[in-house]
Amino acid sequence: MSRKIFGVALALALGAGCSLNAIAQVKPEVLVEQRQAAMKLQGKYFFPLVAMAQGRAPYDAAVVARNAGYLDVLIRLAWDGFDPSTQGVKSRTLPETYSDSAKFKAAQETMFAEMTKFVTAAKSGNEASTKAAINDAAKACGGCHDAFRQKQ
Amino acid sequence: MSRKIFGVALALALGAGCSLNAIAQVKPEVLVEQRQAAMKLQGKYFFPLVAMAQGRAPYDAAVVARNAGYLDVLIRLAWDGFDPSTQGVKSRTLPETYSDSAKFKAAQETMFAEMTKFVTAAKSGNEASTKAAINDAAKACGGCHDAFRQKQ
Repeated sequence: MSRKIFGVALALALGAGCSLNAIAQVKPEVLVEQRQAAMKLQGKYFFPLVAMAQGRAPYDAAVVARNAGYLDVLIRLAWDGFDPSTQGVKSRTLPETYSDSAKFKAAQETMFAEMTKFVTAAKSGNEASTKAAINDAAKACGGCHDAFRQKQ
Repeated sequence: MSRKIFGVALALALGAGCSLNAIAQVKPEVLVEQRQAAMKLQGKYFFPLVAMAQGRAPYDAAVVARNAGYLDVLIRLAWDGFDPSTQGVKSRTLPETYSDSAKFKAAQETMFAEMTKFVTAAKSGNEASTKAAINDAAKACGGCHDAFRQKQ
């Protein structure tokens, strides 16, 4: 398969998740996979910082700064995946996500606010305020999971 | 479970993928899940642009600019997941990824170079040069997949 055709085939196969109006509707199963991918990467780059903030790992300012830059993007990528069309797809997402969308939206906004405070603190280079912001952001993550994600 | 303990538990459960020296070694299965998550999100935000570049979808400059910003981060997130420890984990990654690591590294660098040209073009706002850069970057993606990923 030529590389150009390869790209076209993949585009058709995987669908487009970023612009639901401009591109064909994405399958619910794909939306769930994409939002889970975003959450997984948030975990990859945020949990090590929680370990640093809680003294379980040495504080590494370079890693904190790099991950803050990554997270500033990653925190934006899951939300269009919580489309009502995905309610029938198996996942840990609770029905309240769709039945109380105002509360879900508010939880997102809390997370954005806390994560933005963390990114700002990380840029400042102040270790104490950055650690505090990491802990506050972790609480925002956990608060949303407590309310909208099935316990394992 | 309190939110703080929740965060700690998740951190311990999922491990840390970003700083292998500073944090406990991540399980191979987790590394594979994380690299697949990064690839999935690259697809989410890049394939719609390929459709635009190839005339299968209307060109949307705002979406192109937004996705370019996301991709500038996403293209950095998969590579530490191709650790030799993951060779025993089921995936589509071909053995050449590990047996010819110089060629794999060169393919990464080609992708970075083409994606960087695309991000620069997208920032310029020039539609023609951005479309050309998208097509070139798609070829770089496909070239690496052709060489290092099992066909489906």
